[in-house]
Parts: sequence; structure tokens; C-alpha cells
Amino acid sequence: MAFGWIEEQAEQRRRAGLVRTLRPRPADSPLLDLASNDYLGLAHHPEVAEGAAGAARIWGGGSTGSRLVTGTTELHTELERELAGFCGFEAALVFSSGYAANLAAVTVLGPHGSLIVSDALNHASLIDGCRLARGATQVVGHADPDGVRKALGTHEGPAVVVSDTVFSVDGDAAPLAALAEACRERGAGLLVDDAHGLGVLGDGGRGAPYAAGLAGADDVVVTATLSKSLGSQGGVVLGPAGVIDHLVNAARTFIFDTGLAPAAAGAALAALRLLRREPARAARAREVAAELHARLTAAGLEAVRPDAAVVSVRAPSPEQAVRWAADCRTAGLAVGCFRPPSVPDGISRLRLTARADLSGAEIERAVRVIGETRP
Amino acid sequence: MAFGWIEEQAEQRRRAGLVRTLRPRPADSPLLDLASNDYLGLAHHPEVAEGAAGAARIWGGGSTGSRLVTGTTELHTELERELAGFCGFEAALVFSSGYAANLAAVTVLGPHGSLIVSDALNHASLIDGCRLARGATQVVGHADPDGVRKALGTHEGPAVVVSDTVFSVDGDAAPLAALAEACRERGAGLLVDDAHGLGVLGDGGRGAPYAAGLAGADDVVVTATLSKSLGSQGGVVLGPAGVIDHLVNAARTFIFDTGLAPAAAGAALAALRLLRREPARAARAREVAAELHARLTAAGLEAVRPDAAVVSVRAPSPEQAVRWAADCRTAGLAVGCFRPPSVPDGISRLRLTARADLSGAEIERAVRVIGETRP
Ligand SMILES: Cc1ncc(COP(=O)(O)O)c(C=O)c1O
Ligand SMILES: Cc1ncc(COP(=O)(O)O)c(C=O)c1O
Repeated sequence: MAFGWIEEQAEQRRRAGLVRTLRPRPADSPLLDLASNDYLGLAHHPEVAEGAAGAARIWGGGSTGSRLVTGTTELHTELERELAGFCGFEAALVFSSGYAANLAAVTVLGPHGSLIVSDALNHASLIDGCRLARGATQVVGHADPDGVRKALGTHEGPAVVVSDTVFSVDGDAAPLAALAEACRERGAGLLVDDAHGLGVLGDGGRGAPYAAGLAGADDVVVTATLSKSLGSQGGVVLGPAGVIDHLVNAARTFIFDTGLAPAAAGAALAALRLLRREPARAARAREVAAELHARLTAAGLEAVRPDAAVVSVRAPSPEQAVRWAADCRTAGLAVGCFRPPSVPDGISRLRLTARADLSGAEIERAVRVIGETRP
Repeated sequence: MAFGWIEEQAEQRRRAGLVRTLRPRPADSPLLDLASNDYLGLAHHPEVAEGAAGAARIWGGGSTGSRLVTGTTELHTELERELAGFCGFEAALVFSSGYAANLAAVTVLGPHGSLIVSDALNHASLIDGCRLARGATQVVGHADPDGVRKALGTHEGPAVVVSDTVFSVDGDAAPLAALAEACRERGAGLLVDDAHGLGVLGDGGRGAPYAAGLAGADDVVVTATLSKSLGSQGGVVLGPAGVIDHLVNAARTFIFDTGLAPAAAGAALAALRLLRREPARAARAREVAAELHARLTAAGLEAVRPDAAVVSVRAPSPEQAVRWAADCRTAGLAVGCFRPPSVPDGISRLRLTARADLSGAEIERAVRVIGETRP
């Protein structure tokens, strides 16, 4: 049996209680959602849905080819121009996913002979980027500018420091200003993934790099996803025009991938325009997170103080985390459940996301359910 | 300057005449399209556009999270069930792109201690999968079952043979039956990427593995994309239920990626249903390819006999290929232009795709333009 070894691994997973299964949701799910990454509540906004629908009607169901062949429409260019303008960068390049954008950015900015310095808790897509890159990767401690400085000191030649801006598991922010300082001392580039910052942090949701005064800097490149605050699908790289041109010429997940579907581009563009018109959504997401944290802490739960819109609550064990999340679901509340092997530190937790459109009553109800079901 | 080295590379590209630039197309492009991968002409079909639009209205602009958290809707499950049924496999798993599906399949089927045997002309996404996988990769000659047999003979333990079914550059088909035989002699698994086969080859477009009698085999796994014949975006892995379950549990580009946007799932589902209703589209794409090839050859051009819907025409040099494609464009015809470094064999060519909805007059016109502009 060619794939017999897979059955053995499945058996091990079953014994360890670590089996993952898909739970398809209906369109009218009755659950209160604190599990999605729809931070601004835009995924279901009628303007965003219409952005997708209208783009599909005009441009078709797919982009029909690589961005370099037939896959670039004027819609893609428009989205890129507006994303760059909003986030304060010279140029932008859109990908089929945030994952693809990260693979592109890390591999292209970490070529043969270069050093890539990577935060120990970076997202899987950045880690895979490091694995694919021809440069040498040095992993440093979490949120540790001195560690970065030390790592950079070991290398001559091009170097890039790679970090999430907001870490997806605990929701804590990277020390961006200090990282930029460490990079500049050594002439290294800084590449940050603002997947969980865009739409939440910075003036009107312009993102963590904007908030840190790094927008438009010639030594900073930012990746982000269109699939969280912007309620769509896709990824983007933002940076100096020369870097973006280089990605067009060298990034394998750009050159050899079909362009983002028009509907996804249209939805993201509609969401971006909505956010420009209603900038208070960003601050509201942060407020909801702060309120969730305050109430959880008041209820005696161990929650990490949120720097953006992710609130992480510690669970005593993987089994108890799974049961806790399941009990929440039974009580009508959807929460994320992170546990090994997808948490690098081995700590299991519930992961709550603070949607800007949660009402005070919904926040109260969520905290009550989490408290009542605690292990 | 942190990214100063990028300017040097750009300068080298300019000197070598290898600069790539994006050419945004308008919605009403007047060009005759022989460049896209829209083999069945479905990307702009009203039912496919409506499939996208309707799904966005019901399910929102994005899937809002990882497939394991909030990103699996009943629409995703429906699409997976219909894709598996159509292609003749037990189970299916949908990804945000074909690229992501390939990274997932290769990394999961090529774990630590295993051997991955990879065709020298495999697609970039399969190659990146090999680079990311923990197993050892052995590259064998193009379409060489004996080479595969020899490579498999060097290894004890799990092994998987990886190949495109239809190679994207020259449009030639892999010797699937012979590859399967070589695998079975050695108890190895076979993983094939049917990106350019689905919708074109096999009864009613069920794909190359179906045509080769391999559909549903317990030692065969297939990947495909929703972005070519199905006119949408996304990828899929098809195979035994146990393998698909294992991907759900272990594939990083599944676990750590936002689920495919509902609009893309809806468009692909609509295209699939259209293809079931109008199975002659598949045969028509092959017919168009054969006619293109016959007419090009009759005009004295060096074209590779097509096994599916890709027709490749040799160009004397990279510069001439670029000029040839540009001259075609000026004459109203969009063709693909493949040249180093994106062709592993260093041969530059025009790449034509045979859409099922090309008329006889359009085929004639395309061949005339290509002939008149030849270098
Ligand atoms: C920090 C971070 N980066 C990148 C990604 C990948 O983005 P996408 O889902 O758009 O592929 C995610 C999550 O999905 C993420 O949390
Ligand atoms: C053979 C092959 N496999 C995989 C892919 C990637 O699929 P997608 O564009 O859906 O990411 C492509 C082209 O894009 C391809 O030609």
C-alpha cells in the first residue's frame, strides 16, 4: 500500500486526541462569531458582496492566467494603486493569497548569499518563505530587537529582518520601531507581515507600519492579506517601486500563479473604500478587543492584553481547550482553538477576535459563555 | 541602502532584455485571446459569473478564516463533493490556489525519510513543493518511466512520484499509465498535477488520470486548479479519503491559509455543472488544438503536436519571441510568450491555448497573424 504510512499517522493522531475535522457552516449560522478574522465586519457587508458580484460580471469568474500573461486587469491595477495610497507606500502588488505574498516577499528579499533574520513566532507562511529562500535563515527570539542586532552582526552582505506586525496566536504587536532601528544600524531591510494590523492599527486602519512611522520608507517592505479586515481573499506586498518591480520579475508565486480572481479584487476594493469612508471601524475593533480583555480578566480568566483585535485566552491543556471551544459552540458561541502542533510554544488557547461590529450585549454574552464553560 | 542590490539586478535584467512588465487589460479588450488558460471559454460565461456573484451575496466576500476555523462553508463541501464525483475520486479538498494545493500535496506525501521522484520539467509549484518537503527529492528526466523505476530502486520506505499530467510549456502529456506501472512495481504513490488536463482530457473533461484509468486508485493522488478550465480561482487535491484527511491535519497551506473565497467556489461549481451538461466542450478544446497545430505546421511553423489544449511554437531566440508576441498583439492577437528564465530547457516559444469557443474563422485569423509576424 503506497500510502499505508498515512493510516499509521492517523492512528497516532487519534490516540493523541489531535484529530482535526472540518465543520461546514451554513449561510445562516446562528452562532455568535468570535472566531473569524473578519475584524471590521466587512465580509458580509452588502457593498463588499456587491464589489465581488459586480467584478465577476464585468471581468469574469477568474483572471484566466498569470498576472504576466492575461491575469492583470485594470481592476487589479486600481486595487494596487489604492492599497499603496492608503497604506502610504510607493507601490503594491496583489497576489492570490497572503500566503503566496509572503512566500514571494521572503524568497525574493532573501536571495542566495543573504541573511534572513526571522522571529521565532512568525506565521507559517513566513517560515515556509524562509525554507524556500536561497538565503540563510537565522531564527531569533520573539520580539527581540537585540537578538536581531546580534544576528545581523554575524553577516556581511544583504540581510532582511522578517516579522509579523501582530502575532496571530497571542495578538501581541512586534516592536516595529526598535526593529527598524536595529535594521538601520546594519543597513538591513525590514519585511513585516501586517495581516492582522491592516484595517485595525494606525490612523483609520492604515496598518502597523503606518502607525510606527515606517510607511513609505525605502528600506521597509510590508505584506498583508485581503482576507481578514478587507473581508475578501488575496494578498499584497507594499514597498518601494523598485522592490515591487523586482517581485514582478522574480517571485515564483507571482509569475507561476494565476492572478487573483476579479471578484476577490472587487470585494477588497469595496472594503477598502468603505474603510476610507468609515475610518472609525478600525478604532472600534481595538475598543472591542480592549473591552473583551477587561471583562475576561475581571471574570478571572487569563487573557493576553491585546495590541490589536486578537484576544488570546489560556487553556490548561490541549484536551481542555478543545472541550472548552466545543462547549462554547454548544452555548452558541464560535471561538478559535489553537493547540499543538499549530502553536510553536505548545500553549493551548482560545483565540477570540474582536469584530468592530460586535455590540456591547454581544461582548457581554460572549464573556459570559466563556466564563461559564471554563474548564 | 538596504535594497540597493535590487537595483543592480534590475540593471542586469535591462541589459539582458529580460524585463517583465504588467500589461493591464480593459474589460472589453479587442484582442483575440489565445493566451489565457480559459480552455473551455467559461471564465466569462454568464452562469459562471452568476455563480460567483450569487455566492458572494449569500456567503460574503471572503471565507473569513482558515478552513479549520470559520473558512469552511457548505458551499466548499458541495464543491468538493462534486469535484470528487466528476473526476472519479473518493474525496477532494479545495485550496486557495492550485499553487497552494501542490505545495500541500508534495509536502504531505513527501515526509521526512521519504523519496520524492520529480520530472525535470514539472511546474514551479511542484518544484517548490519538493523544496519545502522534508523528504529527499530526486529529479529524473522528462517523461521517463525507466528513470523513475531506477530512482525508486535506490530507496527503501515511502516514495512518491510527482509529475504534471500535461506540461504547461509544451503541452505534451506525461506517460501516466507507464508511470503508474513503475510506481506499482515499487509500491510507490503517484501524485499528478492535472492543471492542464481537467476539463480537456478524459471523458467529458474528467481529466488525464480518468483517461488513463487511474481515477479512484488507492495509490494515486491528483491535484488540479480551478483557475483554468473552470474559469475561476483555487486548487483541489483529489484522492483516497485517508489521504485527504491527512492533508486536513498536516498541510500547512491548508491549515494556515484563509479558505477559498465563496465567489471563487461558486464560479468553479457553476463551471463544473456547465461542463457536465455540455461535455462536448472538452472534445472541442482538443479539436481546436489539433486544428491550430495542423494549420501552423502547414504554414511551415515549428509547433509541438498537442496532447491537450496547449500548442507551443518554437521561436529562434528570447528577443525574437518577445518581438513576435508583441507583433501579434499589434495585429490584434494575444499569445503567451515563454522564455528564460521561466522555461527550464532555455527554449523560447509562443504558447497558444486552444479555447473550445474559438470559431474556425478565429483559428484561421490567429494562424495568419502568427505566420505574418514570424521572425
Ligand atoms: C500573520 C499571517 N500572515 C499570513 C497569513 C496568510 O494569509 P492568507 O490567509 O490570505 O493566505 C495569515 C493567515 O491566514 C496570517 O495570520
Ligand atoms: C501545471 C500547473 N500547476 C499548477 C499551477 C498553479 O495553479 P494556480 O494558478 O491555480 O495557482 C499552474 C498554473 O498556474 C500550472 O500550470
